[in-house]
Amino acid sequence: MKKNRVEAFSDGVIAIIITIMVLELKVPHGNQLHDLKSLLPIALSYVLSFVNVGLYWNNHHHLFQAVEKINGKVLWANTHLLFWLSLMPFSTAWMGENDFTKWPVILYGFILMMSGIAYFILVRTLLPIHQKDTALAKAIGNDFKGKFSVIVYSVAVIIGYWSVTIALILYVVVAATWLIPDKRIEEVI
Amino acid sequence: MKKNRVEAFSDGVIAIIITIMVLELKVPHGNQLHDLKSLLPIALSYVLSFVNVGLYWNNHHHLFQAVEKINGKVLWANTHLLFWLSLMPFSTAWMGENDFTKWPVILYGFILMMSGIAYFILVRTLLPIHQKDTALAKAIGNDFKGKFSVIVYSVAVIIGYWSVTIALILYVVVAATWLIPDKRIEEVI
Amino acid sequence: MKKNRVEAFSDGVIAIIITIMVLELKVPHGNQLHDLKSLLPIALSYVLSFVNVGLYWNNHHHLFQAVEKINGKVLWANTHLLFWLSLMPFSTAWMGENDFTKWPVILYGFILMMSGIAYFILVRTLLPIHQKDTALAKAIGNDFKGKFSVIVYSVAVIIGYWSVTIALILYVVVAATWLIPDKRIEEVI
Amino acid sequence: MKKNRVEAFSDGVIAIIITIMVLELKVPHGNQLHDLKSLLPIALSYVLSFVNVGLYWNNHHHLFQAVEKINGKVLWANTHLLFWLSLMPFSTAWMGENDFTKWPVILYGFILMMSGIAYFILVRTLLPIHQKDTALAKAIGNDFKGKFSVIVYSVAVIIGYWSVTIALILYVVVAATWLIPDKRIEEVI
Repeated sequence: MKKNRVEAFSDGVIAIIITIMVLELKVPHGNQLHDLKSLLPIALSYVLSFVNVGLYWNNHHHLFQAVEKINGKVLWANTHLLFWLSLMPFSTAWMGENDFTKWPVILYGFILMMSGIAYFILVRTLLPIHQKDTALAKAIGNDFKGKFSVIVYSVAVIIGYWSVTIALILYVVVAATWLIPDKRIEEVI
Repeated sequence: MKKNRVEAFSDGVIAIIITIMVLELKVPHGNQLHDLKSLLPIALSYVLSFVNVGLYWNNHHHLFQAVEKINGKVLWANTHLLFWLSLMPFSTAWMGENDFTKWPVILYGFILMMSGIAYFILVRTLLPIHQKDTALAKAIGNDFKGKFSVIVYSVAVIIGYWSVTIALILYVVVAATWLIPDKRIEEVI
Repeated sequence: MKKNRVEAFSDGVIAIIITIMVLELKVPHGNQLHDLKSLLPIALSYVLSFVNVGLYWNNHHHLFQAVEKINGKVLWANTHLLFWLSLMPFSTAWMGENDFTKWPVILYGFILMMSGIAYFILVRTLLPIHQKDTALAKAIGNDFKGKFSVIVYSVAVIIGYWSVTIALILYVVVAATWLIPDKRIEEVI
Repeated sequence: MKKNRVEAFSDGVIAIIITIMVLELKVPHGNQLHDLKSLLPIALSYVLSFVNVGLYWNNHHHLFQAVEKINGKVLWANTHLLFWLSLMPFSTAWMGENDFTKWPVILYGFILMMSGIAYFILVRTLLPIHQKDTALAKAIGNDFKGKFSVIVYSVAVIIGYWSVTIALILYVVVAATWLIPDKRIEEVI
């Protein structure tokens, strides 16, 4: 089975997710500069999510560059990833509209954690159908970053119950570690 | 006529349908965990529809892998399928917001049934323009699953008048039979 | 310049237009069958627009099958067409929510007429960069249908001032003449 | 790394941005011609933004025609551009709903300026990975238009504090200079 339509469908869904999040930035009633102030937490929440969804697209792009073939299981592992990402606009809006309070911040981290797990499953579904000497197998290696992200997110979700600030810092830390493009795949390809 | 733009357009429309459904998950006013509770039926309704629309994309993908050529009739059979799928966000929201009560559940099944019929028509429009020994003809066979789904949906829609629970179980049963990827096409290709 | 990205961008925009129209079908408050009744004019308006936008995608698809090259002018003629099509969700909603009363019906026809003119301009921009013996030139011929549509829409918009019914019938008539796929291009290619 | 998925993702995001802006054209309550009057500033704001986003797609299209390869940095420079463009629906709506008053007009120009800077950065990220004799390097030249746009937008944003009219005229002037397709790239390719 060819990979091009999976890429196209994922591009479509991720493009929509990243763009409809901005619809939560509701136009303020006033026309003064300070009317934008109340939007600040929502805007910050949006920037964080834009970077995170952008990261997933980037990693998906890098990953599928190395993919040689897919099967029915891969289609579902991919749809499963898109499901969790599709909940990002909701958790982004809830967190932004509630000024980064406890439960919205925890839910936000939970969605990120589930997305991380779904990405991990996608990678694990792709590996068995690729030989050990393929670009994909070499590029993924032991997938340290993937495991690291899921673990940090789990920790952040628990810590969030006591400290929202630490949870948010951990979300930013994981995003930062991914902003460095995946050298492994780029080198191999 | 080439099939690539029909695939691209269908990918686009289905990607949008599957993603805008989540807009119905309106952000709750409170910021506590129990504020999410009232969203539970809408979230469940969303999960069911995400799986169903995901299934249609999956099957569409499998089907068009085997397609060798199309014509004007196929374009319209495909647009007809997209029409019924485009009503999914509406029926999903109505069912979720009304806690799975009678008429919304019946309408939901009706839209699924019409989508099933539209998919069936699409397949029947593709068959005459493909030889009997092509991958498509071999892969489709007697299309047991397609006929089965439409019949179960029709039954569910009628039963829904007396028992919402049985109707919902039937919707889940059909989805479950499709979650197993279409071995027929995968084997032939 | 290659045509594939113009196709992809147009597919994207048209897919979004055809899908967001359904967002106007607002979920009714009640959960009874008769609660759907008040949605009937909006639903009818949606069906008419779904067919019309579907037609434009279909014709665009047929047209670009025959296109061999494009230039900067074609890009803008195409964007101009997408502009008028992008107003379809607005005119569809205004017409549906006002039960097909005079001015909304006239505006609806005006947007259709402008889309028709924009399509006509797009065709005229493509012709000079294609030789007389190319598939495109042969396929377009004297473009009777294109001219016919624009004229009927203009007439319908004027008549709409006195009779909404006749205007609506004319909209349906034009759509019906296009539902027959463009044999000219299909035969040549 | 191949460029086709960056094109596809950008096409998707830009297609959504250009189309969801129209959702701000809220259907008026009345059904008379004069009920449309109050929508006039929003409609004008929409037209200006449609042209501007259309321009970015056009330029992106021209630019990537000449691109031969990309890397991780290009992916992020491109995502950065999409971020600023994604704020266009917000600034368009704020400006339209407030009848082109001071702060909304200034914000609108600010988003345009940041988009211009992001486009400039994208071009600068592409140049080092292309040889001096490639189509891209020849086509870009000293990129007069790009620098000119950013400078005029900065001036317009400052002037906007005293004169909204001059700021708006400058926005239109920049758009007009871009409406002429980029001859440089078209000639080289």
